[in-house]
Amino acid sequence: MKEYKAGVLLEKINTPSDLRKLSEEELPQVCEELRQFIIDVVSEKGGHFGASLGVVELTVAIHYIFNTPYDQLVWDVGHQAYGHKILTGRRKIFHTNRIYKGLSGFPKRSESEYDTFGVGHSSTSISAALGMAFASKLNKQSERQHIAVIGDGAMTAGLAFEALNHGGAANTNLLVILNDNCMSIDPNVGALKEYLADITTSHTYNKLKEEVWHLLGRFSHFGPNIQAIVQKVENSVKSAVLKQGNLFEAMNFRYFGPIDGHDVNHMVKVLNDLKDIPGPKILHCITKKGKGYQPAEEGDPTQWHAPGVFNKDTGEIIKVIPKSPQAPKYQDVFGHTIVELAEKNEKILGITPAMPSGSSLNIMMQAMPNRAFDVGIAEQHAVTFSAGLATQGFVPFCNIYSSFIQRAYDQIIHDVALQNLHVVFCLDRAGLAGADGPTHHGAYDIAFMRCIPNLIVSAPLNEEELRNLMYTAQLESTKAPFVIRYPRGEGVMPNWKTPFKKITLGTGRRVANGNDIAILSIGHIGNYVTKAIEKLKQEGISAAHYDMRFVKPIDEVLLHEVFGKFNKVITLEDGCLMGGMGSAVLEFMAINGYHAQVKMMGLPDKYIEHGSQIELHTECGIHPGGIVLTAKEMVEGEINKQASA
Amino acid sequence: MKEYKAGVLLEKINTPSDLRKLSEEELPQVCEELRQFIIDVVSEKGGHFGASLGVVELTVAIHYIFNTPYDQLVWDVGHQAYGHKILTGRRKIFHTNRIYKGLSGFPKRSESEYDTFGVGHSSTSISAALGMAFASKLNKQSERQHIAVIGDGAMTAGLAFEALNHGGAANTNLLVILNDNCMSIDPNVGALKEYLADITTSHTYNKLKEEVWHLLGRFSHFGPNIQAIVQKVENSVKSAVLKQGNLFEAMNFRYFGPIDGHDVNHMVKVLNDLKDIPGPKILHCITKKGKGYQPAEEGDPTQWHAPGVFNKDTGEIIKVIPKSPQAPKYQDVFGHTIVELAEKNEKILGITPAMPSGSSLNIMMQAMPNRAFDVGIAEQHAVTFSAGLATQGFVPFCNIYSSFIQRAYDQIIHDVALQNLHVVFCLDRAGLAGADGPTHHGAYDIAFMRCIPNLIVSAPLNEEELRNLMYTAQLESTKAPFVIRYPRGEGVMPNWKTPFKKITLGTGRRVANGNDIAILSIGHIGNYVTKAIEKLKQEGISAAHYDMRFVKPIDEVLLHEVFGKFNKVITLEDGCLMGGMGSAVLEFMAINGYHAQVKMMGLPDKYIEHGSQIELHTECGIHPGGIVLTAKEMVEGEINKQASA
Repeated sequence: MKEYKAGVLLEKINTPSDLRKLSEEELPQVCEELRQFIIDVVSEKGGHFGASLGVVELTVAIHYIFNTPYDQLVWDVGHQAYGHKILTGRRKIFHTNRIYKGLSGFPKRSESEYDTFGVGHSSTSISAALGMAFASKLNKQSERQHIAVIGDGAMTAGLAFEALNHGGAANTNLLVILNDNCMSIDPNVGALKEYLADITTSHTYNKLKEEVWHLLGRFSHFGPNIQAIVQKVENSVKSAVLKQGNLFEAMNFRYFGPIDGHDVNHMVKVLNDLKDIPGPKILHCITKKGKGYQPAEEGDPTQWHAPGVFNKDTGEIIKVIPKSPQAPKYQDVFGHTIVELAEKNEKILGITPAMPSGSSLNIMMQAMPNRAFDVGIAEQHAVTFSAGLATQGFVPFCNIYSSFIQRAYDQIIHDVALQNLHVVFCLDRAGLAGADGPTHHGAYDIAFMRCIPNLIVSAPLNEEELRNLMYTAQLESTKAPFVIRYPRGEGVMPNWKTPFKKITLGTGRRVANGNDIAILSIGHIGNYVTKAIEKLKQEGISAAHYDMRFVKPIDEVLLHEVFGKFNKVITLEDGCLMGGMGSAVLEFMAINGYHAQVKMMGLPDKYIEHGSQIELHTECGIHPGGIVLTAKEMVEGEINKQASA
Repeated sequence: MKEYKAGVLLEKINTPSDLRKLSEEELPQVCEELRQFIIDVVSEKGGHFGASLGVVELTVAIHYIFNTPYDQLVWDVGHQAYGHKILTGRRKIFHTNRIYKGLSGFPKRSESEYDTFGVGHSSTSISAALGMAFASKLNKQSERQHIAVIGDGAMTAGLAFEALNHGGAANTNLLVILNDNCMSIDPNVGALKEYLADITTSHTYNKLKEEVWHLLGRFSHFGPNIQAIVQKVENSVKSAVLKQGNLFEAMNFRYFGPIDGHDVNHMVKVLNDLKDIPGPKILHCITKKGKGYQPAEEGDPTQWHAPGVFNKDTGEIIKVIPKSPQAPKYQDVFGHTIVELAEKNEKILGITPAMPSGSSLNIMMQAMPNRAFDVGIAEQHAVTFSAGLATQGFVPFCNIYSSFIQRAYDQIIHDVALQNLHVVFCLDRAGLAGADGPTHHGAYDIAFMRCIPNLIVSAPLNEEELRNLMYTAQLESTKAPFVIRYPRGEGVMPNWKTPFKKITLGTGRRVANGNDIAILSIGHIGNYVTKAIEKLKQEGISAAHYDMRFVKPIDEVLLHEVFGKFNKVITLEDGCLMGGMGSAVLEFMAINGYHAQVKMMGLPDKYIEHGSQIELHTECGIHPGGIVLTAKEMVEGEINKQASA
């Protein structure tokens, strides 16, 4: 394994206490070396990039001034914490980042005492740090500091606002560092973004503050008459302008900044001052994603968010050009198909909470800017907003990653399904999501969706099916809340642009005939069954394959066929076993009095770590080999039983 | 059925268009009559009270000025919409409010075209109205108005903030009316509340606005030198003070107010002006809960939120004094027990999102004010804040209604369970919640909780079991995320203060022996089984009863006993059938190869409307009679089968 060489200062830093031994003058060099180390590793190993480069100085300054891990540092989202990981004892294994059994791409409590709170989803940091701050208060550790570092994108989520509302009224040692780079993965949207831009441009709050005081000072030379007026306005201005003149001060946080987030020495001074100011405070830092690496600074920040492998000298992002036509990503099938459908059905709209490029809704945003909405990191609002649109006869396609829709669960039940509104939920990254790990696996959606009345819950086997499900979902005759889940990554059909066909709601289909055992699958993972069946055939076992296509309503006609014919059945899903599709099949059996032997295959009742999708499927035994093994055991078990009888 | 008499003006109003025929001078009388009508009906029929009285003038003014239902009015939460219902064609059936098969206690789309969006949970109105406003924009209905009426309590929830962030950046006809009465059900908390108090007291934003302009006007008489300065400051002040000087204007909403929400004529004028101002705007109205009914105005607003039946002349709330000792409410068992436990275990904390009285956490808030937190209407934050506390070794009991925890689903998975943090979730109002109806039924929690790894999911049969589960949950040896769900209303044990006993995790118990059939229940609804078994015994059927106590981990030893002995099994739960406890039992059977006949009893796959709990249980067939019927059918079906064989 190649060893990555650190610079002379960085090499000596194994924990933040080593960093604190350096002089302030040495910090710029530490930053440079840290940045270079990140470039060296990420250019060859892949991973998140722009965000971590943007907080190099902030990371160094925080660990230099605060007594981590006693002082508690919480990174929001966490994909920007590479520098933090490297400074906190993980430099030598940092090249295992995001690799199966290697370092997590996000802070993780089990990995280091410096990772105070596991993250992955956005906007949790203020709540968590506030909890820690209250704990310190109860423990009478009045000197202990609690720092949440949160991006301007993450600040738009409701959870962050709820925490500000609580934190502003509580007297705890809470420092929120607003890392303002005008970006989530995609450029930020919304009023807060505009506000932050206002605050940092010429007519800033700070400039106003200066001007007003300056003005008041000048007026005070104009005699007693004026002085009385000045006195009066001073009181008002002081209490209202300076206190309420800022969004965050309105929430009772003391506001500092904006400051340059790339001037490490200045930040060290500011943080040192803030340490001694009690109560809730916010420090507004302006940073640039990709800072210090020219191609990232000057290129498209969305592309450099997680560019994959690149040539660090030229900035060329290395794409493997396939020799034969490849199957597209499911997200791109979604992105192109919604435009195709929207061209014919003017009621179709597209909604994404801050994931235009991740969901490929950016294709529609470009093609039909008035009909596609990026609402910011705001899954709850995305869903209720879609519900509002649907009340007026529109058909919103609300595209949210499976694990992120957990944020909008109540809105699905209460605002969409209860009112039976025609909203189509496209859940990308359903099933095991890969290198992002347990926070990002879309493991539970089948279980938590299928219990909701009125919802239709489906998953396509391949690109053609995704297109047909999207087509079916938007039809006026469907008119019900409709879930389509599909995985991260590529499908199986290079020629995916098939003509639309309506699918009868709640119907699956027999993909392959067989005699010994039936395998019922839902979604893309059904493609493993095709491989498994071939292998089984070689071993003399004849397995039938049914693609259920809908978890809800489940295809009862098909299930009667299955249980009328087979007494051995496997259910397969890329989702949790507890309460999942297999469980729905068991419910059907109980209601209809069938007693076949059923083996449920899916995700076990534990958190699955990060790795490639096939590595993780193999770990869970739901890869083709696992299916073969299970089917053989069931069929041969029967044969053995008969033999011994 | 008693007919409720309306005043002379109100009697003529069958729809808002009738209201609009009246002169402005007549509106105060309409308000008086509307208020009186609400008092007349609610004092005898019960229901929400204080909130609806507080918005009488607002309701009249809105329907007078806006062209409802073409203009779209969305009430947040909706328990304040009684006046709205009475003015929009439902006066004559208003006495059926909250009664089985009668009017819903909340706006409901299927009930009236004036109810544009179904509500019950808080803080959805801005998102929904924004969706409608965008729809109108797309439909080129530029004159159409969209009004969200939201309380200051509901404004603290993240969803409302997410909607402001989107709405502020969008140019739609959106008017948010902030109904500021300083109250949720309990008094409001948090920085926003303090901010709103600031804004409405002497040094208000408005006063400042006036003063600054006044001042600038005066200065302009002082000659050109001053004028230059004034010009300069004017620009800054204009752009910064007046634009950013207000929390809502920071979000790019034009802010108006605060105005007196009980001066109907003034409000009519203001709303009429606002109609012609395009873009997002907010009108801040100050109202008083219970306004116009002296006992409510002067009494405890929490008590008068939904006082039950009262003597309208004396203001005496009528409580039926029971002749014998009664079983307590589960919520009170929780409230007293957490204090008892916290006295012994100093790590225990209590957290509620704005439900101190509803959850009875107010008992702890009074006894131990430093250790019990009301975080505002902010379920997401309540959970992640609890996670933060738990990282520091505290044991937070986070009490949230079952249907409201849907708001914090991601936080349970991502912040608590994934990190295996020791947070105890007490889910009140689990199962059918009664008169509040489908938005408030805690129907899905078993299904959506049991799929989450690491979680322990339990439900007590009675008060003693609730105490023992709470005791067990807080033990250092348990140290895992722990869910305890229990229903709204009373338990079954007048002498409930039993000594604490540790329950072995994941164990149920046999409550009654039997031979013909086994009934497995989870939670309080198991008490129906006791009644059913007696009745079955009279009919010659011997039924065993098992209280599962834990859905997860499920008691496999007990289930082996059950399926070893019985080939007929009923599962019973006050929760959805799909993916619920019965489904967990089926999974156990599939894994272990049991083939008994199982009948799952629980909530069907549809939304259950409002009514008393027993009415609704009867509708779902999970009342004692339904259990008897099912058991008889299963046992006698067997007998008949044997007879015909």
